[in-house]
Order: sequence, then C-alpha cells, then structure tokens
Amino acid sequence: MNYKMMGKFLSQILIVEAGFMVPALLISLYTGSRAAVYGFGLSILITAGVGALMYYFCRNSTRRFFAREGMVCVAGSWIAISFFGCLPFVFSREIPNFVDALFEIVSGFTTTGSSILGDVEALSPGIMYWRSFSHWLGGMGVLVFLLALSPNGERGKGYTMHLLRAESPGPNVNKLVPKMRTTARILYVIYMVLTFINFLFLLLGKMPVFDAVCTAFGTAGTGGFGIRNDSIAGYSPYIQNVCTVFMFLFGINFSCYYLLLVRHVKEVLKDQELRLYIIIFVVSILLITFNVRGLYGSWEETIRHAAFQVSSIMTTTGFASTDFDLWPGFSKALLLCLMFVGACAGSTAGGLKMGRLLLILKNLRRNIRRILSPQRVEVVRMNGNRIGEDVLNNTNTYLAAYGVILVGSFLLISIDGLSMTTNVSAVAACFNNIGPGFDVVGPTCNFSVYSWFSKLVLIFDMLAGRLEIFPMLVLFSRSTWRHK
Amino acid sequence: MNYKMMGKFLSQILIVEAGFMVPALLISLYTGSRAAVYGFGLSILITAGVGALMYYFCRNSTRRFFAREGMVCVAGSWIAISFFGCLPFVFSREIPNFVDALFEIVSGFTTTGSSILGDVEALSPGIMYWRSFSHWLGGMGVLVFLLALSPNGERGKGYTMHLLRAESPGPNVNKLVPKMRTTARILYVIYMVLTFINFLFLLLGKMPVFDAVCTAFGTAGTGGFGIRNDSIAGYSPYIQNVCTVFMFLFGINFSCYYLLLVRHVKEVLKDQELRLYIIIFVVSILLITFNVRGLYGSWEETIRHAAFQVSSIMTTTGFASTDFDLWPGFSKALLLCLMFVGACAGSTAGGLKMGRLLLILKNLRRNIRRILSPQRVEVVRMNGNRIGEDVLNNTNTYLAAYGVILVGSFLLISIDGLSMTTNVSAVAACFNNIGPGFDVVGPTCNFSVYSWFSKLVLIFDMLAGRLEIFPMLVLFSRSTWRHK
Repeated sequence: MNYKMMGKFLSQILIVEAGFMVPALLISLYTGSRAAVYGFGLSILITAGVGALMYYFCRNSTRRFFAREGMVCVAGSWIAISFFGCLPFVFSREIPNFVDALFEIVSGFTTTGSSILGDVEALSPGIMYWRSFSHWLGGMGVLVFLLALSPNGERGKGYTMHLLRAESPGPNVNKLVPKMRTTARILYVIYMVLTFINFLFLLLGKMPVFDAVCTAFGTAGTGGFGIRNDSIAGYSPYIQNVCTVFMFLFGINFSCYYLLLVRHVKEVLKDQELRLYIIIFVVSILLITFNVRGLYGSWEETIRHAAFQVSSIMTTTGFASTDFDLWPGFSKALLLCLMFVGACAGSTAGGLKMGRLLLILKNLRRNIRRILSPQRVEVVRMNGNRIGEDVLNNTNTYLAAYGVILVGSFLLISIDGLSMTTNVSAVAACFNNIGPGFDVVGPTCNFSVYSWFSKLVLIFDMLAGRLEIFPMLVLFSRSTWRHK
Repeated sequence: MNYKMMGKFLSQILIVEAGFMVPALLISLYTGSRAAVYGFGLSILITAGVGALMYYFCRNSTRRFFAREGMVCVAGSWIAISFFGCLPFVFSREIPNFVDALFEIVSGFTTTGSSILGDVEALSPGIMYWRSFSHWLGGMGVLVFLLALSPNGERGKGYTMHLLRAESPGPNVNKLVPKMRTTARILYVIYMVLTFINFLFLLLGKMPVFDAVCTAFGTAGTGGFGIRNDSIAGYSPYIQNVCTVFMFLFGINFSCYYLLLVRHVKEVLKDQELRLYIIIFVVSILLITFNVRGLYGSWEETIRHAAFQVSSIMTTTGFASTDFDLWPGFSKALLLCLMFVGACAGSTAGGLKMGRLLLILKNLRRNIRRILSPQRVEVVRMNGNRIGEDVLNNTNTYLAAYGVILVGSFLLISIDGLSMTTNVSAVAACFNNIGPGFDVVGPTCNFSVYSWFSKLVLIFDMLAGRLEIFPMLVLFSRSTWRHK
C-alpha cells in the first residue's frame, strides 16, 4: 500500500473541504449567528490544519498506485470528509450529538437526504447552506472535483483512472475524452451549468434566493435535504414542477449531455439506458396517477404529485410534495421498487442504476437461452457494443453484495424493535441514497427514532450505496491490509 | 421439441397420480364421507382416463431428449399434476372455487403449506389425507419417483439426468452412484425410512395414527399443512420437539444420509454446507431465545418455541407451535431472513439453499480479492472440490432471476392494497415454499384475503420456487417454442 500518496491525496481533499466551508462561514457572519460562526471558524481551522500537517508528512510520495489503493483512497476520503464535515454541526451545538451530526453530514455527502432533525427550520442559515451544499459536492464526487482542479500532466495515467472508477457510479465508467482529467472537468462544467439553470428557473417562480440556492443544490446532487419541514409541499405548483423536471434531468447519464454538446444527437436517442429510464418513468407516473385518483382535487394536482414523487424516488432525491406514506398499497409498493432501481449510471443518482439493471436482465435472458441450447455462443450487447464477461460477472457480484448488505443491515437495525415496513424502507432509503422511507421514517418523519448503533449501520449503508459497495468492502477486507 | 416423449412421460405421471388418489378414496369410503368418495372417484377416473388416452397417442416416441425438453417436461408435469390434483377438492365441494383449490394443491405439491382455508378441521379425513400426502410426494419430486419406479435399462442416459437435474433442488445435482435411476431409488428409500421413523416417534407421543401420518408427511416434505387450526401448537411439548428434530433432519442434504450408510462419516462431518446449516440453526435459536425471553413461562418453553420456529422456517416447513407474528421485531426480522436462506441443497426444503448461499458468498470474496490483485488467479472451492465458472455464473443468474420474480410478484399482489409487511412476507413465504408469513398472512391467518389474480401470481411463485425458477422461465420463454 502506498500510504504516503494516499495521505497526500487525503490532505488535499481536507484543504479543499475547509475552503468550501468558507461561504458557510460568511453566511453565518452576515446573518449574525454567533454559534455557527464559531462552529465554522473552528472547523475550518481544524480541517485545514490537519490537512496541512498531513501534506507536510506525505509530500514525497512514489507513483505506485493500483486499483486497491484507489478503492481504499476513495473510501478513506469519504470517511474523512464526513468526519470533518460534521464538526460545524457539533461545534455550533445545532446538532450537538456526534453520531447524529455524522449521520446528517453522511446523508448530505452521499446525497441521501435522510435527516435526524425534527425541525429543520430551526437551523441557522449557515448550517442550512452547508447541509445543502454537501449534496452538491457529494453528487458529482469530491475526488472528481480534485481531479478536475489538478494541473495537467502532473500525475500518471492509472492514478486518475483508478480514482474516478472507484468514485463514479455505474457498472463501467465511460471516458468522454481520452484524458481522465479533461473528462472530470467537462463533467463538472456540465454539472455547474445545469445547477445554475435550475437555480434561475426557481428564481423565476419567485422563490427566495437562499431557498433557490439550497433547493438547486439538493436537486442537482439528487440529495433531498429540504429547508422547510414539509420539504417542497409548501411551494407553488410551478416550483414543484421545476423540481420534477430537474430531478429527472439530473438522473440522466452526464455523458448524454456531453454527446448533445458535440451534436451526437442520434447516439443519445438510441441509448438503451436512457430509453429504459424514460419508459419506467412514464409508466410509473401513469400507474400511480391511476392508483391515487380521487385523493386530490384535480387531475392536474394528481399528475403533478405522481410525477414529482416518481421523479424524486427514482432519481433517489427524496424531496416530497405530498405525504406519499398515505397513498394506497400499490403506489407505495411501486415506489419501494423504484427505490432499488434508481436512475442512470453516470448521473448523481443512487440505487442499482438502470444500466446495471439492463445488464442483469440481458445476462438473465442470455443464460436462459444458454440452458436451452448449450452449444450456441451468445454475447450480451449494450448500445451495440459487446459487454465483456468480466463486467457481467462484476455486475452479478455487485448484486450479491447488495443483497448481503441489505439483509445484514435490516437484521441489525431490527434490534431497535420498530416495524418491519419501517426497517425495510429505512435500509432501502439509506442504501440507495434516497432519504425518506415509509411508516415511522416516512416523508413527514425522521430517523431520530433509531438508536446510535442503528444510525452507524445506516451511515455505513449510505456510504456503501454512494461508493457502490466495493470501496467500503475493500476497506473492511482483511486481505487489503495484509503486507505483501 | 420432442412432444411425443414428453406426452408419454406426462401420461405416466397422471396414471401414477390417479393411483396415489386410491388411498384417499379408501379413507373416504371408510369414514363414510359421500361427497369425498364422489370427488375422489370422479377425479381418479378423469386423471387415469386422460393419462391412458395420452399414453395411447404418444406411445411411439423417439429418444431425442435435451435439457430444454427436460425443463419443459418438468414444468409441464407439475402444472398437470396440480391441475388434476385439485379436482377432488372441487368435486367434493370442500373447496368449491377452482382457483382456491388449485392454490391449495400447488401449495401442497410444492411443499409450501400456505392455505386459503380458515377452518382446516372442517375437512373430511380423505381430503385431509390427500392434502398432506401431496407434501410427501412433492417433497422428493414426482418425476424422481417415476424414475425410481421405471425398469432398468429402458431409456437413454441423458434422459434421466436432464429430468433429475430439472426437478432436484440445489445448484448442482450429485449423483450418489453412477446410475441416475439407482440414485433416485436410494433417495426414495432413505426418504421413506426417515418418514416412517418420524411416524413412529409421533406415535410414541400418543398422537392418533391419522394425525401422525399426516404430520409425518408434512414434516418429511417440509411442507407445513397442519390438520388442526392451530397447527402444532395444541400438541404436547414432546411432539413439538419431535417435529423440531425431524424438520431439521429433512433439511439436510440426502446424500449425507447415503454417505453415512456407506460409512463415509468423515466426509459428512467435513461437509461445509452441513456445517453452515448447523451454525445458522444454533445461532438463530440462541438469538431468538434471548430476544423473546420473558414472553413464555419458563426457559424450557422459550427454547422449545424458538427451536421449533427456527427449524420450521429454515427448512421452509411452516408449522407453528406459537403465534410468532407476536414476537418482537428482531425475531421476526431474523425469521424473515431465514425464509430466504432455506436449508441444504438436495433436501426437501425450499429457499435459496445453504449451498447456493455458500457459493454466492465464496464468489463474492473471490471477486473482492480479484479487485485487489487482478493478476492473481483464484478458484472457488467447496469441500475441497473446484467449482466451475459455469456453476458460479448459473448461481448468480439464479440470484438475479430470484430478485426479479420477487420484486415483480410483490408489485402485482400489492394491487390488492394489503399492508407492505403482508405482501413482502406473502411472496417470501410462497416463493420459498414456507407457508405462513406475517401480519394478515401470519400463522393464525390464511391467504383467502387475496384476490384470484394475486392467488395465481402466488401459485406461479410456489411452482417457480419448488422447481428452482428456470423450468418455469423456460416454459414461458419465447425461444423455447420457436421451431428449429
């Protein structure tokens, strides 16, 4: 293991994180919330200080960097930014309990949006901004950000590839352009521009600037922290519809936007993952609209709420425009299934991802055919390209690991004695980075009912879900730490 | 497709089924229940008649028989025996509704034990016997029985292999001896002897003969139809303990018994699947005992109920000695997980099976190691034998298909609007061939609350679970029926 290089990387990330806390400090200064100013000031000092110290000790590193180092580095970075990121909550005494604060910031960075807070509106603006900003940073990935920042030609090729692979969602990472660093930059530029457009559309709906910034962060990262206790339900129908559309847009693979920019429109239209995403989206809205008819005053309202909730759950955002825990059984069951499905690979969404689902289904069909005629050789194709057996094998392994973690977490948090629906949906909501579940953790409730032990389990789930399991498993695997 | 040979096979199975109805007819005659006599008489005539007709038309068949034919044949046979097997219920008017009757007999043959009956004790003895006997026949498999019966050297080698493979549970079928037919005979002899011993132990507890026969059938097939409304709860602690032990024994891979008979004790002791089975069994009992302490009068009673329920759920039998739906959350969550795990491959139990679970976990560990050091070649071993990549791939495909069917069924039965816990556990209980679930389908309730559509979905699940998915998928796959 190349500890020095990993340390150097971590130190840079901490310094970047300290830098990102500065706007929150300024907001706190401006709004005059002394506790928050103290919280952010102290946190910035500690984070930057630890970062600087680490950089000093690890500045001379070699370039040996393999997949293993990439995985450990990503998992370690995420744990580190979470640890330091929750300090403002603790120091400002707005979330004094450390486990609660950690839960809240992990939920932020992993773009989950599950909260342990009963009254969000009691938070000071600086803290609220930091909470929403964590969604935006975590959505595209903090390491990807660092890569985008780093000067050209500084590091070896394998280095950036391994890191990007470990942090980016989806079964296989597409390079948009030959250079990984340029890919990272393109991704972040698209991300920033889309977020800004979202912000403008929200302003057009007469949303206050601060609300619009936070909501745009939550939408872009497909996070779901609201700044009001009733999430988006209190805003106008126009704003709800803007959210629906932008949640959907942020659930699309970002490489599609790049292809649109370079005018490869045909490729985008033929993308099988995008097609499946749109089909499931539309069909789910129709089914739920039919199922909940009569619950709302008009068809317009019914469709609006159906579309909002489908968009929110499918993209794993977790905003709510209505209390969907009161919906009939079929709609809730459908939403529960959508929780697992997630949106497209290469977007900011969580869950299994459309691409992975497609691979699993295609592999399933292939293997059934293989049983029927064992002598025939058949390959799995996606958008016309042949998918390697190693990717298929990895996808299946992913599914198995997914199942094991799901079942294990469910068992562990069941010790608290809450209802089965609560526990199943809590694990589903955290592991797939959605936010609210059903029953006791429904959209009008929060996760404070769980014990600190269950919260730690759910923190692990959120991180495992965001980093797509393997980095976290590698971190806790014995063979990683064995000397070689 | 070799339709003639499949038809010939089906015809033989129907004749055997008609033969098995004769004891039920005699019991009905003896107890003087006229409706049941009429029901069985008519059913025997129809079943044997259809069988004889089919045999006449299909007697000249060729020997071309591949995996595809094996799958279709097995799936078709099970649907046929279910269709004809439910006729006595309908004709005797004891379960007049056809879908209900079909549900009941499929639940019997697949050794599920889910019932749509509110009052089991109202059934006539002949019907009750047929219901319990279906467990016994379905447990080891009706095609395996036919193979065991068939004269030596009549058919080609591939023929029996494909059929046994398609009907027997577990990721890979062990041949005990070089000849498949002899293997089938050995399996059935062990099965009969164990059932008889179970029967004797029940008689020792002063259980009435009829009750003992039915309970032994239900235990041996790991089925779970009780003959009393409170399942086994009303019997003595001795009888409950006998059931616990024998359910556990019928959950062990039958090849272990064969190895014991030929004195290969060491191999049995080293069997990894058996070890995992025992470990999960003991640990679950300890955890539940600790969790439900204080609910019962004494430690003896607590341990007895914990052991009984763990044994019943893990072997997918589904008997109940107490209403476990009233247990605390953790115990229920653990039972729900055990529902999926199941017992050993090559036993009469359902579920994923220990062997498959082991393969999934071992493959997972291997693939994580492969991520860490891509250049290292590592194989998966079970009991020291190398497991082929095709078996691993099949196991993963199985898991994927399992997930897809689970989610799909859950969605479809959710249309009825029952609670999420009810629906999740109903699908889990039917698909894994267990019997009772939680909440509205808990051990003191039944499945009559579902619509006929949901019942059909659950019937499919029970069959898919018993036949390990692929035969049912192949039956409904377009490429099976395409001319070639």
